[in-house]
Amino acid sequence: MPKNFKSEFLSPENSVLLLVDHQLGLMQGVRDFRSLEEYKNNVIALAKTAKAFNIPVILSTSVDTGPNGFLMPELEELFPDAQVIRRPGVINAYEWPEFREALEKTGRKKVIIGAVTLETCVLFPTLSMLQNGYDVYPVVDASGSWSEMAAEAAMLRMTQAGAKLTSWASVVAELQADWRKPTAAAAAQIFHDHLASYGFLMDTHQNYASDRK
Amino acid sequence: MPKNFKSEFLSPENSVLLLVDHQLGLMQGVRDFRSLEEYKNNVIALAKTAKAFNIPVILSTSVDTGPNGFLMPELEELFPDAQVIRRPGVINAYEWPEFREALEKTGRKKVIIGAVTLETCVLFPTLSMLQNGYDVYPVVDASGSWSEMAAEAAMLRMTQAGAKLTSWASVVAELQADWRKPTAAAAAQIFHDHLASYGFLMDTHQNYASDRK
Amino acid sequence: MPKNFKSEFLSPENSVLLLVDHQLGLMQGVRDFRSLEEYKNNVIALAKTAKAFNIPVILSTSVDTGPNGFLMPELEELFPDAQVIRRPGVINAYEWPEFREALEKTGRKKVIIGAVTLETCVLFPTLSMLQNGYDVYPVVDASGSWSEMAAEAAMLRMTQAGAKLTSWASVVAELQADWRKPTAAAAAQIFHDHLASYGFLMDTHQNYASDRK
Amino acid sequence: MPKNFKSEFLSPENSVLLLVDHQLGLMQGVRDFRSLEEYKNNVIALAKTAKAFNIPVILSTSVDTGPNGFLMPELEELFPDAQVIRRPGVINAYEWPEFREALEKTGRKKVIIGAVTLETCVLFPTLSMLQNGYDVYPVVDASGSWSEMAAEAAMLRMTQAGAKLTSWASVVAELQADWRKPTAAAAAQIFHDHLASYGFLMDTHQNYASDRK
Amino acid sequence: MPKNFKSEFLSPENSVLLLVDHQLGLMQGVRDFRSLEEYKNNVIALAKTAKAFNIPVILSTSVDTGPNGFLMPELEELFPDAQVIRRPGVINAYEWPEFREALEKTGRKKVIIGAVTLETCVLFPTLSMLQNGYDVYPVVDASGSWSEMAAEAAMLRMTQAGAKLTSWASVVAELQADWRKPTAAAAAQIFHDHLASYGFLMDTHQNYASDRK
Amino acid sequence: MPKNFKSEFLSPENSVLLLVDHQLGLMQGVRDFRSLEEYKNNVIALAKTAKAFNIPVILSTSVDTGPNGFLMPELEELFPDAQVIRRPGVINAYEWPEFREALEKTGRKKVIIGAVTLETCVLFPTLSMLQNGYDVYPVVDASGSWSEMAAEAAMLRMTQAGAKLTSWASVVAELQADWRKPTAAAAAQIFHDHLASYGFLMDTHQNYASDRK
Amino acid sequence: MPKNFKSEFLSPENSVLLLVDHQLGLMQGVRDFRSLEEYKNNVIALAKTAKAFNIPVILSTSVDTGPNGFLMPELEELFPDAQVIRRPGVINAYEWPEFREALEKTGRKKVIIGAVTLETCVLFPTLSMLQNGYDVYPVVDASGSWSEMAAEAAMLRMTQAGAKLTSWASVVAELQADWRKPTAAAAAQIFHDHLASYGFLMDTHQNYASDRK
Amino acid sequence: MPKNFKSEFLSPENSVLLLVDHQLGLMQGVRDFRSLEEYKNNVIALAKTAKAFNIPVILSTSVDTGPNGFLMPELEELFPDAQVIRRPGVINAYEWPEFREALEKTGRKKVIIGAVTLETCVLFPTLSMLQNGYDVYPVVDASGSWSEMAAEAAMLRMTQAGAKLTSWASVVAELQADWRKPTAAAAAQIFHDHLASYGFLMDTHQNYASDRK
Repeated sequence: MPKNFKSEFLSPENSVLLLVDHQLGLMQGVRDFRSLEEYKNNVIALAKTAKAFNIPVILSTSVDTGPNGFLMPELEELFPDAQVIRRPGVINAYEWPEFREALEKTGRKKVIIGAVTLETCVLFPTLSMLQNGYDVYPVVDASGSWSEMAAEAAMLRMTQAGAKLTSWASVVAELQADWRKPTAAAAAQIFHDHLASYGFLMDTHQNYASDRK
Repeated sequence: MPKNFKSEFLSPENSVLLLVDHQLGLMQGVRDFRSLEEYKNNVIALAKTAKAFNIPVILSTSVDTGPNGFLMPELEELFPDAQVIRRPGVINAYEWPEFREALEKTGRKKVIIGAVTLETCVLFPTLSMLQNGYDVYPVVDASGSWSEMAAEAAMLRMTQAGAKLTSWASVVAELQADWRKPTAAAAAQIFHDHLASYGFLMDTHQNYASDRK
Repeated sequence: MPKNFKSEFLSPENSVLLLVDHQLGLMQGVRDFRSLEEYKNNVIALAKTAKAFNIPVILSTSVDTGPNGFLMPELEELFPDAQVIRRPGVINAYEWPEFREALEKTGRKKVIIGAVTLETCVLFPTLSMLQNGYDVYPVVDASGSWSEMAAEAAMLRMTQAGAKLTSWASVVAELQADWRKPTAAAAAQIFHDHLASYGFLMDTHQNYASDRK
Repeated sequence: MPKNFKSEFLSPENSVLLLVDHQLGLMQGVRDFRSLEEYKNNVIALAKTAKAFNIPVILSTSVDTGPNGFLMPELEELFPDAQVIRRPGVINAYEWPEFREALEKTGRKKVIIGAVTLETCVLFPTLSMLQNGYDVYPVVDASGSWSEMAAEAAMLRMTQAGAKLTSWASVVAELQADWRKPTAAAAAQIFHDHLASYGFLMDTHQNYASDRK
Repeated sequence: MPKNFKSEFLSPENSVLLLVDHQLGLMQGVRDFRSLEEYKNNVIALAKTAKAFNIPVILSTSVDTGPNGFLMPELEELFPDAQVIRRPGVINAYEWPEFREALEKTGRKKVIIGAVTLETCVLFPTLSMLQNGYDVYPVVDASGSWSEMAAEAAMLRMTQAGAKLTSWASVVAELQADWRKPTAAAAAQIFHDHLASYGFLMDTHQNYASDRK
Repeated sequence: MPKNFKSEFLSPENSVLLLVDHQLGLMQGVRDFRSLEEYKNNVIALAKTAKAFNIPVILSTSVDTGPNGFLMPELEELFPDAQVIRRPGVINAYEWPEFREALEKTGRKKVIIGAVTLETCVLFPTLSMLQNGYDVYPVVDASGSWSEMAAEAAMLRMTQAGAKLTSWASVVAELQADWRKPTAAAAAQIFHDHLASYGFLMDTHQNYASDRK
Repeated sequence: MPKNFKSEFLSPENSVLLLVDHQLGLMQGVRDFRSLEEYKNNVIALAKTAKAFNIPVILSTSVDTGPNGFLMPELEELFPDAQVIRRPGVINAYEWPEFREALEKTGRKKVIIGAVTLETCVLFPTLSMLQNGYDVYPVVDASGSWSEMAAEAAMLRMTQAGAKLTSWASVVAELQADWRKPTAAAAAQIFHDHLASYGFLMDTHQNYASDRK
Repeated sequence: MPKNFKSEFLSPENSVLLLVDHQLGLMQGVRDFRSLEEYKNNVIALAKTAKAFNIPVILSTSVDTGPNGFLMPELEELFPDAQVIRRPGVINAYEWPEFREALEKTGRKKVIIGAVTLETCVLFPTLSMLQNGYDVYPVVDASGSWSEMAAEAAMLRMTQAGAKLTSWASVVAELQADWRKPTAAAAAQIFHDHLASYGFLMDTHQNYASDRK
């Protein structure tokens, strides 16, 4: 029987989530999603995922008193006790000592990252972290882009550098791994609320189930 | 000065909303939206609109014990006291006496309609109502379609017949008409929650406003 | 209560289906569908619809010994007893006496038409029939086109002339009208086999139903 | 020879331009353009067109101290002497007496309108003006939309009501009519600066021309 | 039997083709085709169609010594004896006396028109000709546009005004009407050379046919 | 002459097919195909391919009594004797001992995999199998995705890890290798039934062939 | 100064072109191009390129008496003296001894390949040739695909294996390298005839040039 | 603390910008952008970036007296003192001694390159420079392409060879690195003028800020 074949997967014990620069102004600039509602939905789903699996989360903003705007209030509400690391100017979050130290303090080497734009706030820290020995998972659908071309370039550059591109629902499934584990209800609730098709299936199933009694 | 130039517009006093067949199974078949989340978002936004403007709402389902599935629970929760007219087989809701009588009882002649698929549940009642003297407003983005071609055909056929195609946010604006009217806060809240860009603007504005004090 | 409000709808008693030039060679030229499988699926679904509702069907081909090719064998198999009217050169099927007489003999005035390309085999007979007092329903998703632009032009021209654009599943629903009518099983079977989403719903429902016993 | 065959066209003498609600916040919500730069480019090109042809322009904003934001500064700079009609809440600009009177004062019956979203700020005044005897030309590419579906619905509804949909470069050509008229240089400059292909052609031509000397 | 049911169709005897402003510079600006090769292919196919059916053709250019550039040489070669009406500035070709007189001299009332951009060179003469009693057929795929939005607006405006939108291959079929007429070989050759799929079918058929002998 | 240059290709002798989680509920969530009919068509084509080449097939489902739903009946019918490995919760099929043992028992190292969503049911086993020395061929068009972005991320991540992305018709051709081998008729039948264009060609060819006699 | 920096580029001296299976039937199945005319244009452009640069060309077909059809006559006309290697069944052209020997006889190691479908006729020989030490350049726009997904999979798999994806106009430029070399006129003619934009530029330039005299 | 983790990033001190062949004629051929305005906008934004960060810029043109046309005047105006290296025929700029020497003279090893088409003017020098030890950053949205397929092929080939694909706004952010550095105002101005969304945010912010005083 193969040994340790699971070793490369994300788990609630080996992962940390970085949510970078999902600020009210910057969110407006995202243009690679036809529907900004879809993007907002994905960001919140990813944030809830960390909560459901009790994964450490590091939030950060960039020059949030300027045009970039304040952090999305939905994220503040989800993590009322989280410290938001407010970077006064450094674009690459990993370069900001307070941020880097917060990451190091988690002791985790698998980093899930969603940030407002792939080609800046995701790309730069991803490259830095790869260079520093982290295993990085950019969540491409919880990160936007100023254009489809810019997104394409950033995805190829990060893949080339060794990052493992992923998507929010894939992260949920990778962390859950087995639906018999106790986080199942919380994970399923995220699917229910943020993956419309799955929500319809769950509600249908519940109707049938209750009908049977 | 022109008289009655507003006469052709929707108002909270002259309108009724029909929500037809947004059932758990049928919702799955909608394929003209790339993101089913966007479609669900729009349906709920339209439903809330009726509530915000205190417009009568008529809900209906078709053979809901079969594959079509039960009504989306989100709609049931929004209208806990509403009677849902369950049609046992008639596809054109307007042909079902109980439904038609409910509509007639409202005494309103401007009908806003959203239904699960444009080419059936929207199209047939729209044509019937136009023929019976109603002014019909199909909400194309709170109605889905089995394909883009089917949607295109239905939109052209309904326009040809005299229906006025519209979209949910356009309905909100048409009903609100003046942001100084008392429904403004409720209408703005719908924009905040269902039109992501507008939500970001409102939250930004509130931050600036509170900052000024 | 409104009188005759159903009068404008298709019914098994007032309709006839024309299937024109779905020939093996011409089918290859259809380019407005990304997936030719989808187009073929729709043509067969429309053909089965006529059979399920026992509507008269008129099949025709154009110069079928040349590059256009023979009729799709799937259509021949569905209608083994049908006479296929083979036009030796006339493009507008309605101009061909044998075809026109076959149509007139049905005594029906509501004509559902699917043909290999919207901009020729659908467009010309549709315009002729409208001029001769027929009510014409071009089925846009059971008809192809040499390009998306050509399809768009033909759809606008036919709508302008008074044709009622429709789609195959909309035709099924318009003919069925009430799921309690005896054709329901046959109609549902067409949905099951040609509208993948609906087939999945039906199979799911049957599983649940049999589970309950 | 036909008389008055030009009578239906826009001219600098018979037209007025309305620019409605191109405000900094609302512009962010436009999602039917993949590139917001393209939308901004078109709005400015349309504004310059009015200036080049010396057509009266009426600017207006809606609740500009709130989330909608202030008027785009580029428009203010183009029309430093223009009065901006600030509507405190009325959505349909034509319903606002000050706006309507400004329009009436121009004495012109052909109205070119560009506004931030087709489905609200363009649609409502367009319908009102058509009802009041104006000939209305919505400029669809200098107006945005919250979604492609909403734009499609609004375009069909306005066409049905009698509005003549147009685009900014078509307006330039319709107003110029003859390149030998004195506005030619100004019109060509707008093409040069806002229609990239035409700019490249003009610069190429100038190179060749100067080369010949 | 219905009389005159063909009366509304194009025929070689009742039609004239206008080819307007397909100039080397202006062709570069066409952006609603992803492939400019496809656009050029369509223009030439339409031109050959007139030749195959011996329909009068009127060619015109606008300010062809400036950035617009000279007429496509392919068109000059196809019609070596044609007089090209060079308009020194008037944009609407129908407004230019020489052009209008050339049209009137043909004595034909059904006008097929292809021009470099739908929203100017097609739109303006189409509106003028409709107003002067012509039956106008804009060929949308042998006419380009500066953007997809501009094309959409122009198509809706022309349809609203009564023009009959069409496409080049539809024109070929409408003119040919019956493949037993003597123009068949020439018409088929155009399909062979400009509709790739049809060319492949014809070559396949010829292979089979020669094989049989 | 090169030796063993074929060694890297799939063959009926070195391959095994995994079909994972094509369940009635999960199929509904696939959104990267515009046409769900196309997806269903591809899944069945891939399944038939294994049968035509007599390749071992391992079927599996995940929590099939819940919202995910039962296995597509079409797959059960194709493999009536196959054991379906029903995983009670483990998402990564390869992690489930019964599944892994079934795979090992085949003794084959080249694994063709199609599963309901690329970003979960294909991705995780693919990564595990690559790590355990298998050569993995994810069939991207017989696997769906919750969104186009998620599909893109999964495809890049799997390519980076060494998987060889493929498509169902490419698998057929790779396995057939030479049309003179005895599986040719069965392979061609799959093309006929699931690749519409090829079916039309085959039927045309048969017509010509029989015509010659 | 760097040495041999050109060593990795294609040149007329180090390259050979393979054109595989561009047969009349198979061409019909190409669906990843919206316009089949564009695909045909590209194939011919690539073929002419070999001729212009006097590069050896190897043509091959697969079972050309069956549904696949005969070689495009345009290719036969371009290379009247070429031997067409007719493979009676082997799909991977490189596996067919006669083909492989023809390639080896050229003595060239840089192989440019265009074939009717990327996922079969391009993919398999490309993988074989890479394994046998060739440097392979699949021309993706002179090769089609049965679907966009299949093309994407094949492009990623070939890139992963070391093939250098290219496009026909890029090949022309890589071979020409310097516009002062004697092949310039022939290369430019290919651009003129197959890259519409460049043709318009060349004709414009010639007009200006002759004007100057 | 990690050392030198910034070492792989672009900085004003380690970078040089190459702008190759953005000539008036060649710009017309770019077809992978729907809006040529967007492409022109991006090219100018990238050029201004070099200026804002005081990075050396090397401009070059290819056969600029022929159809390719002269350099875009906007670039000449931005760099009035720059020497434009006019290549009389060599396509690969790096192969032209004067160009290569200019690059070497900068002493910089990180090369940002934008050129008129990805598949020629970007691709060839990128491959040469990678081979000569440069770190190359092709700016994909300030470079065009003759088709989307050609762009895709070039992007994969360059990534495979080790180039780091990027986009103009990503370059700005990578160079700026920290908004507290003195180039901030100039960098922000580029965002303001060329990234419409960011411009709207900045103008909004300034309005709020001035309002507070």
